Amino acid sequence: TETQFFAGIPKIPYVLDAEGGDVLCFKHYNAEEVLMGRRMEDWLRFSVCYWHTFCGTGADPFGLQTQRRPWNEGTTPMECAKKRLHAAFEFFNKLGVKYYTLHDRDLSPEGMTLDETNRNLDEMTDLALELQNKTGVKVLWVTCNLFAHSRYMNGAATNPDSHVFAYAGAQLKKGLDVAKKLGAENFVFWGGREGYNSILNTNVAAELKHMANFFKMAIKYKEKIGLQCQFLIEPKPKEPCKHQYDYDAMSVIGFLKHFGLEGDFKLNIEPNHTTLAGHSYEHDVVMASVFGMLGSVDSNTGSPDLGWDTDQFPMDIRNTTMVMKTVVEQGGLQPGGLNFDAKVRRESTDLEDLFIAHIGAMDAFARGLRNAVSIIEEGVIASMVKERYMSFSRGIGQKVEDGTASLEELEDYVIQNGEAKVTSGKQEKYETVFNHYM
Amino acid sequence: TETQFFAGIPKIPYVLDAEGGDVLCFKHYNAEEVLMGRRMEDWLRFSVCYWHTFCGTGADPFGLQTQRRPWNEGTTPMECAKKRLHAAFEFFNKLGVKYYTLHDRDLSPEGMTLDETNRNLDEMTDLALELQNKTGVKVLWVTCNLFAHSRYMNGAATNPDSHVFAYAGAQLKKGLDVAKKLGAENFVFWGGREGYNSILNTNVAAELKHMANFFKMAIKYKEKIGLQCQFLIEPKPKEPCKHQYDYDAMSVIGFLKHFGLEGDFKLNIEPNHTTLAGHSYEHDVVMASVFGMLGSVDSNTGSPDLGWDTDQFPMDIRNTTMVMKTVVEQGGLQPGGLNFDAKVRRESTDLEDLFIAHIGAMDAFARGLRNAVSIIEEGVIASMVKERYMSFSRGIGQKVEDGTASLEELEDYVIQNGEAKVTSGKQEKYETVFNHYM
Amino acid sequence: TETQFFAGIPKIPYVLDAEGGDVLCFKHYNAEEVLMGRRMEDWLRFSVCYWHTFCGTGADPFGLQTQRRPWNEGTTPMECAKKRLHAAFEFFNKLGVKYYTLHDRDLSPEGMTLDETNRNLDEMTDLALELQNKTGVKVLWVTCNLFAHSRYMNGAATNPDSHVFAYAGAQLKKGLDVAKKLGAENFVFWGGREGYNSILNTNVAAELKHMANFFKMAIKYKEKIGLQCQFLIEPKPKEPCKHQYDYDAMSVIGFLKHFGLEGDFKLNIEPNHTTLAGHSYEHDVVMASVFGMLGSVDSNTGSPDLGWDTDQFPMDIRNTTMVMKTVVEQGGLQPGGLNFDAKVRRESTDLEDLFIAHIGAMDAFARGLRNAVSIIEEGVIASMVKERYMSFSRGIGQKVEDGTASLEELEDYVIQNGEAKVTSGKQEKYETVFNHYM
Amino acid sequence: TETQFFAGIPKIPYVLDAEGGDVLCFKHYNAEEVLMGRRMEDWLRFSVCYWHTFCGTGADPFGLQTQRRPWNEGTTPMECAKKRLHAAFEFFNKLGVKYYTLHDRDLSPEGMTLDETNRNLDEMTDLALELQNKTGVKVLWVTCNLFAHSRYMNGAATNPDSHVFAYAGAQLKKGLDVAKKLGAENFVFWGGREGYNSILNTNVAAELKHMANFFKMAIKYKEKIGLQCQFLIEPKPKEPCKHQYDYDAMSVIGFLKHFGLEGDFKLNIEPNHTTLAGHSYEHDVVMASVFGMLGSVDSNTGSPDLGWDTDQFPMDIRNTTMVMKTVVEQGGLQPGGLNFDAKVRRESTDLEDLFIAHIGAMDAFARGLRNAVSIIEEGVIASMVKERYMSFSRGIGQKVEDGTASLEELEDYVIQNGEAKVTSGKQEKYETVFNHYM
Repeated sequence: TETQFFAGIPKIPYVLDAEGGDVLCFKHYNAEEVLMGRRMEDWLRFSVCYWHTFCGTGADPFGLQTQRRPWNEGTTPMECAKKRLHAAFEFFNKLGVKYYTLHDRDLSPEGMTLDETNRNLDEMTDLALELQNKTGVKVLWVTCNLFAHSRYMNGAATNPDSHVFAYAGAQLKKGLDVAKKLGAENFVFWGGREGYNSILNTNVAAELKHMANFFKMAIKYKEKIGLQCQFLIEPKPKEPCKHQYDYDAMSVIGFLKHFGLEGDFKLNIEPNHTTLAGHSYEHDVVMASVFGMLGSVDSNTGSPDLGWDTDQFPMDIRNTTMVMKTVVEQGGLQPGGLNFDAKVRRESTDLEDLFIAHIGAMDAFARGLRNAVSIIEEGVIASMVKERYMSFSRGIGQKVEDGTASLEELEDYVIQNGEAKVTSGKQEKYETVFNHYM
Repeated sequence: TETQFFAGIPKIPYVLDAEGGDVLCFKHYNAEEVLMGRRMEDWLRFSVCYWHTFCGTGADPFGLQTQRRPWNEGTTPMECAKKRLHAAFEFFNKLGVKYYTLHDRDLSPEGMTLDETNRNLDEMTDLALELQNKTGVKVLWVTCNLFAHSRYMNGAATNPDSHVFAYAGAQLKKGLDVAKKLGAENFVFWGGREGYNSILNTNVAAELKHMANFFKMAIKYKEKIGLQCQFLIEPKPKEPCKHQYDYDAMSVIGFLKHFGLEGDFKLNIEPNHTTLAGHSYEHDVVMASVFGMLGSVDSNTGSPDLGWDTDQFPMDIRNTTMVMKTVVEQGGLQPGGLNFDAKVRRESTDLEDLFIAHIGAMDAFARGLRNAVSIIEEGVIASMVKERYMSFSRGIGQKVEDGTASLEELEDYVIQNGEAKVTSGKQEKYETVFNHYM
Repeated sequence: TETQFFAGIPKIPYVLDAEGGDVLCFKHYNAEEVLMGRRMEDWLRFSVCYWHTFCGTGADPFGLQTQRRPWNEGTTPMECAKKRLHAAFEFFNKLGVKYYTLHDRDLSPEGMTLDETNRNLDEMTDLALELQNKTGVKVLWVTCNLFAHSRYMNGAATNPDSHVFAYAGAQLKKGLDVAKKLGAENFVFWGGREGYNSILNTNVAAELKHMANFFKMAIKYKEKIGLQCQFLIEPKPKEPCKHQYDYDAMSVIGFLKHFGLEGDFKLNIEPNHTTLAGHSYEHDVVMASVFGMLGSVDSNTGSPDLGWDTDQFPMDIRNTTMVMKTVVEQGGLQPGGLNFDAKVRRESTDLEDLFIAHIGAMDAFARGLRNAVSIIEEGVIASMVKERYMSFSRGIGQKVEDGTASLEELEDYVIQNGEAKVTSGKQEKYETVFNHYM
Repeated sequence: TETQFFAGIPKIPYVLDAEGGDVLCFKHYNAEEVLMGRRMEDWLRFSVCYWHTFCGTGADPFGLQTQRRPWNEGTTPMECAKKRLHAAFEFFNKLGVKYYTLHDRDLSPEGMTLDETNRNLDEMTDLALELQNKTGVKVLWVTCNLFAHSRYMNGAATNPDSHVFAYAGAQLKKGLDVAKKLGAENFVFWGGREGYNSILNTNVAAELKHMANFFKMAIKYKEKIGLQCQFLIEPKPKEPCKHQYDYDAMSVIGFLKHFGLEGDFKLNIEPNHTTLAGHSYEHDVVMASVFGMLGSVDSNTGSPDLGWDTDQFPMDIRNTTMVMKTVVEQGGLQPGGLNFDAKVRRESTDLEDLFIAHIGAMDAFARGLRNAVSIIEEGVIASMVKERYMSFSRGIGQKVEDGTASLEELEDYVIQNGEAKVTSGKQEKYETVFNHYM
């Protein structure tokens, strides 16, 4: 019989009339409920991340481990790895989440050689596949950890040493194999060490070209092995590097277009990264969507008064509403989803805190979805916006829209029509209407 | 008969079942409704600010006036000043707000000499008093504008030139007289130019001493004329200066204590200033309250992704709940209040936008109040906190609390009791419970 | 005879052994001196901006005018405009700067109609041309002010009203005519109102497309009139808008490539905008250069502790060295230059402060140039960097460089060569060597 | 015979005419050279920190150890601790630095019990004392690590559990004993976990009182054991906590004054903390000095574009000049000093990088000292400042200075003297003069 790691915690139910102190039930997330023709779980496509939730220890730059997990107690790394995987699937099932995400190195320990590392990974992915099949839980995305090992300290695909580049390539090859084996619906690239710490020692042009070539090799190998998943790049402006090349959505889009890679990638947007880049919470979700590049969302949050990635569970209903409004407007995120790249605070040392945090965040997104659906179905905001841009569907506006107007024609229009009206932007009205649905 | 400036806008009603697009009614603010033994209007003590709402033009550092108000059209500055005051009282009445706040220079134009300026002010305050008496609207606070005129560019009370210091003192004297005449319940000092732009040309020690002496003269004159109001200092970290001495709540408290002024002042906290100082929205409200120094609140907001004071209308329910929780816990703000030091966006050029913005913000604070009352009345969070600190009400904890323990006793305690337990801080649980009341 | 506006200030000389208190001479900038085969003035291509230096008043969001300039005293706007232009050329000559930059609306006042406005501009550009010919001073770039007038409050090329778009187009047409007439070497687009203040009322996709179409019309008209200058886009992340589409260098590059405009534009980088976007001072200068897109530099600075555009004169030698290192490495900025988009502080009210500020900044850049030349000529840093990337010029590294390697080959390489070395990045060594040249 | 950990690295010499690539010699720091009557080493009082330089591993939140130090290879923690101490003293001697700083837990490993921990510490401090006596190297300050162990995750002196508070007290008692034993000239308190992560679960008033009581016990015990050193509090705004009570200099001063502790403490200012609090680099050094509270400086730097404590070696000459100007003006830092609370970058993995980094920073401060001395000796800036405030030494200004003026007198003065002059602040002149000395 299997060990239970979360004894005493039942399958989390949806309880409509729960009270303030009830925190081990959903008050808003009702997986099967249908909104705008789709079940909540299909709009939200929640995913639990493996690294924070099962590998995290609570250590931070100023302190040691605080969280001691039963699945990390064992005599060998591989024994722990297996217990950890069992714990994870127990967690997924009790929480009622259908997806998880992982780095290659979350699942199994690095060995002394690449070969040993890969054998560890084979053994662990066999077990993962077995548990996936047994439970129906699937992989939202796989990614390679190309930033934690000391060999990557100066970058992986942008390392000044081609030997390290080669190591990253070898690891990526195996990562793509793992994605195929586990049926991952997406594959993410996060370039935590792809950037610079000092511009003085860095050849930016060379590094960007190497990174592009790395991606091209990935595309070729993906095609070769018939891997069907969506490739995603995850922007982050800084931390650990002083500057990371994938600064924000537009930086990545610029990079992809420069190197002709835009057809093969979408973006995985993490709002905590967006705010670190100086944007508002929802900005990169919106911008990526506008460019047809929004593939998936790492649903977490930071504190706007802190300058690093706190990876907190998203609890702000305004934020979740803004994200879900964009997601519903673009018709959903599939094959992407909402991945909780979030960790319980270092001080949240109880096992139940892992549940409370996910439940709270899932409810926050469920409320966001409900709000967004109301906003969209009632259409008050949409019709205000439509009216605002109406002049571009006729006359000179239509010609601008079509790209057929010239500066001379615009001048003629002004000569004939004189000064333009000053029209209120009515921001406070929009905010007030928005608040109505919160 | 009087001109109506806001024709077509009725007295704003409370409408329980208003729809999404209805923005000229209160959906949550019901002035007479009693919560925890006090009417909503007495908890909230809303105030309209004179400067943004009646003097603002929409000009910004990159653009000219956008907002053309009928009350600013006239042949002389004094004629405009009077129309503006009539417009203001029409606005207060239609909005149903009982307080307003003003700078001396908002009310009446500066003349060629101090004497002319003061005569203008006398004439305008006569009219203000008449309108106050007629309507029952009162002054929450008066403040002197010691930052806009070119003479104050290097500071008022901290100016390197004692002639300017004297001018500021003369203006302050009149400002205190005005406060008495209009029955202001508070008097605010905001030191926008009291700080430095370059540390190289600044004698900080001298300037701080001069500022303290300025405050001491104000206290003496206040006593002399029998002015009963509460003195308030409003912290702001920067803008217009690179560094302002009244950086945040703790900086002001330190300054006051250093110069022995803490008994004569409380703080007027503006959350948009708090966030510019690198704190969370509610931080200075909480800190000032903890030190018994929270006197009033300038209820506005900024955008956390912007680095200047945007003075937006507060629309975020989480924020208003946090502020009202503190306010209710300390038993209210009286004689202070919630002053809307907020301006409609430069692009919000319709007259109705002034109403929509205030209504939206008043509703946001009404929801905050309702949420805070539920949180406090149900007591779930309070009892969690109480339990958390329980150990300080017994044994060694009690001795620490009382200040009677010594390091030697603490060491003895550890020798006898060994290692301490690691106890979860349960932040996500608190956040989830908090969200229940949102 | 002409009025002298800067009586008592001579042509600024270069004085090798000037003392600490001497501020009306160059201590480092020696225009004719040759470094690396080019005169200092040709490396630096300094330009004075018209708006801050001749139109600025010292007003800020919290205060009125402080700077009263003799050239702004006159009975009509056009009279002032002409005096201002004469003052400007006296300033250029005494300072010894060969270029100036201007907005259309700096030069001449806006009239009641487009036609009147354009006639004003014709009259003023006639005079400007005359003074240019007389003095040899040239126009580095012209730009259209599409942000200050109330009609542009919701954007110019991104305005929701096509009438405003048309007005912007008409203004741009004239602006391009002016550029041709004055022989401008570049034409700049700064989209201060091209962005959003509230994502709720904004159709981002429509606005970006309109902006791209606006640029396409500009290209066509430029070709039609045979205007030879370089088009430049100036990124800025925010202010006045909450978010501006031209956020930073990479955002603009991404936009240009998305709409197929990259061949017709380069970037005008302003470091104070770069730091507001969360980058280090030199970042966008470097990135634009790496992408072959660095066209010109608005040489100013901000305070890293302030969150808005302070447009200070650049005085930090480290910063000027970093910029000049990049400029020299790419072979210079021509036809661009170093434009002082900088204003004396609001409190710097003396006329001589305009000279002192420019002299201080020119000396700071002259020192930066001298340092950069030493760094490049001695080659210590360059050879350290070259050595660092050496592995990409042989074996597997060469194949990565060429884009001919595959993941399979990289894996083979690792199987044969094992683990990579951990090689020190030696940041502190680079910093120490860099300091040697400061 | 002793192992040499830094074989091949000689005692670092001062070499007047060293070249760009020479990084293992001082180019500016000449310990014995006398400036303004004091030797450079006595002005600068450099100190090496034990934690970063000997305990650091290069691990960061996204990556594992990169720096493998020979002194950390051993079979037991105590064996490593001893090797580490020998390595440290070899380093101090070769670098020519006379002071070091340490946390209790840097020196010796924590045991299973307090008793075992303290015995480890006794053994290690015996050895430290022996090495101190042998070499003449002294302890600038000792501090207790009350933040790394999991027991302190919710605070030490502000922990909600009095058991943890007791543990902190027991540890502090021993720490003070160690300070006495080692002859530490100062004792530092850094409250990394004294603050809140969530205001919802925190009783701020209780926590502040407990912290004050903790300090009072420290004062009593210090007196009891006859410990002569200066107590210092080190402000930091955030990280690890979301908010730390010792936010900045003024926050700490306010706290100390509120609880009557200001006579027993001075401040240890770390500029990287100052910039994280939103101030300019030198701000807290200046403010602490103005209040007579500047005790010591943790001489490091951050990157203004990063929002966390990077603890970089200070290399910016402008910054070091500003700090040394304040230090010289207040007559030096003794018994405090300049402690290098700085770590080589994670990627700087060579042993020599430890030397290069310290040498570069010491030279940066030596240049700062030389510049500051020139500025002060030539007196150009000082006389400009003196002139600027001259009006406060006569007439009405003198009365303001003395605190004998009243608002009525100020009004009289204005009535008689009319409007004040607008006097240029001349910031650019100050900056230009300052640059002359750089």
